[in-house]
Amino acid sequence: MTDRPFIIDGLQYSNWSEAMFRDMNRIGLACVHVTIAYHEDFREMVEQVSAWNRRFERHADLIVQGFTADDVRAAHASGKTAIIFGYQNPSPIEDDIGLVEVCHRLGARFMQLSYNNQSLLATGCYEDDDPGITRMGRQVIREMNRVGLVVDMSHSAERSTLEAIEISERPIAITHANPAFWHPALRNKSDDVLKALAESGGMLGFSLYPHHLNGGSGCTVEDFCAMVARTAELMGVERIGFGSDLCLDQPDSVVEWMRNGTWTREMDYGEGSASNAGFPPQPDWFRDSTGFANILPGLKAVGFSDAEVARIAGGNWLDFFERSFGPA
Amino acid sequence: MTDRPFIIDGLQYSNWSEAMFRDMNRIGLACVHVTIAYHEDFREMVEQVSAWNRRFERHADLIVQGFTADDVRAAHASGKTAIIFGYQNPSPIEDDIGLVEVCHRLGARFMQLSYNNQSLLATGCYEDDDPGITRMGRQVIREMNRVGLVVDMSHSAERSTLEAIEISERPIAITHANPAFWHPALRNKSDDVLKALAESGGMLGFSLYPHHLNGGSGCTVEDFCAMVARTAELMGVERIGFGSDLCLDQPDSVVEWMRNGTWTREMDYGEGSASNAGFPPQPDWFRDSTGFANILPGLKAVGFSDAEVARIAGGNWLDFFERSFGPA
Repeated sequence: MTDRPFIIDGLQYSNWSEAMFRDMNRIGLACVHVTIAYHEDFREMVEQVSAWNRRFERHADLIVQGFTADDVRAAHASGKTAIIFGYQNPSPIEDDIGLVEVCHRLGARFMQLSYNNQSLLATGCYEDDDPGITRMGRQVIREMNRVGLVVDMSHSAERSTLEAIEISERPIAITHANPAFWHPALRNKSDDVLKALAESGGMLGFSLYPHHLNGGSGCTVEDFCAMVARTAELMGVERIGFGSDLCLDQPDSVVEWMRNGTWTREMDYGEGSASNAGFPPQPDWFRDSTGFANILPGLKAVGFSDAEVARIAGGNWLDFFERSFGPA
Repeated sequence: MTDRPFIIDGLQYSNWSEAMFRDMNRIGLACVHVTIAYHEDFREMVEQVSAWNRRFERHADLIVQGFTADDVRAAHASGKTAIIFGYQNPSPIEDDIGLVEVCHRLGARFMQLSYNNQSLLATGCYEDDDPGITRMGRQVIREMNRVGLVVDMSHSAERSTLEAIEISERPIAITHANPAFWHPALRNKSDDVLKALAESGGMLGFSLYPHHLNGGSGCTVEDFCAMVARTAELMGVERIGFGSDLCLDQPDSVVEWMRNGTWTREMDYGEGSASNAGFPPQPDWFRDSTGFANILPGLKAVGFSDAEVARIAGGNWLDFFERSFGPA
């Protein structure tokens, strides 16, 4: 097993199967941060924990729940993949700050303060106006800092993101997004955000979701790796990793639900459109987790050293996990 | 019973008792809009409905649930008081627009879009910045308009309130607040808001909560009635009524809970302060519902006609109920 790369994927949301777990193991995925809540309230989130407990039992030879950086190291050493839970919305804590610690105990290690829309804590990237972190948001960030639940601002609006970086006493993450300088999607991040994130010790996970890629599904691996190199110049090579945003084998009803939840009676197409409503096809060099085998050589080709590729592939996330997942 | 005045109180939140219901009947309260949710989620709100069902059963000679303006008329004609449900926060609909119609069916006729803090729909008056009605807020206002659930902006911030008036296709209410020109509390309303509210056919309910009164607990009934007269000049005599915000016999733990819910681990004092944390004492001319007997003559004393006093006491709210509580 020793020649497998050590890779961490900072976000996936797939229709999980044994075949996927085998792919993860084979490619060297030490850890995948999986989304277990988009709009779920606390009780519904717990059902997802329960579903994962059954997967951990059934596929004990392939996956294990991860709570710490050590769990990730141990999983990789034994040829398995550690699964770390996260939420793309603060819906699981409902309006109860006491649930932050409870969710951390259940294994949550990342929580977005908002998902596209306004939440009780922060503003999402699809709102017209962003007043920054709310009164409850300030309280919740402090509590997340205390227990070691990482603030994730992937789907948040600009001012809220800058304020979260400022207010949080511990580094935060943008687990899955790309720089807007490369592809100016609403979900991608400005230089201001990326610089503030890097200076505060935070992490960016590069997304492989076609709506975040220059050229969409037709994006080339060369173009992607050149973007990684340019971002490393902006943020430093220690502040970047992957967050593929892979949504494998999900029916289009799932992307509809991610976008619409129960907040609207009209259809919201999010990053898509009426004529392109479903999940977009993945680029042919990143159809699933095994696509990392195409990216790592691409990073060498744009000039990264072996040590730098190892950092980007998983070392940086591992360091971040070490600093972030427990009490300060 | 025919010589009893016809009074509607646009908001109370008391620790209910038979003695209070008897006072209501005696003074001529045809209807009280009672708060059944501050921070309650849907299921917790339903427990409050259930508790009221027991009260309606036990005190069937004194109170009856009101769903329509006709129910209010019928209650008064038979010497009873109609109880109408409302929420001071959209927490009972959680993040589910489908719950708007369900809540209306259960009897909710007013729902605040926010309570002091940012909600999923709008901004509360204690936030530093107010970006206006959110994406979900626009959807929910449309749904509230459809079923006949009145938008109440008593605890909301200025821009959100002006936008709610603009976006809502039906008149909205500020059930319990006073003009800021009289007492510049954060909870009281600007001339801009009061004018826009009046022009759109909405209603203001004057509050008798000491933090909303000029001079606080020491406010005089003469000063209060002079303020009503000045507001009638600004808004028109058809756009004003009462919303006393009476919180009778509640322990101070209740005001703590109203202010803090479960959103913070620090103590928030709301309109109070560390040295004045509890419920403030009511003015001696409005200790409970029977205090309306002191106000109505006061309104005559500042120049209102009998017909105008009758409008302010209950006629305006009744007209508003008639226009607002069913499908458009």
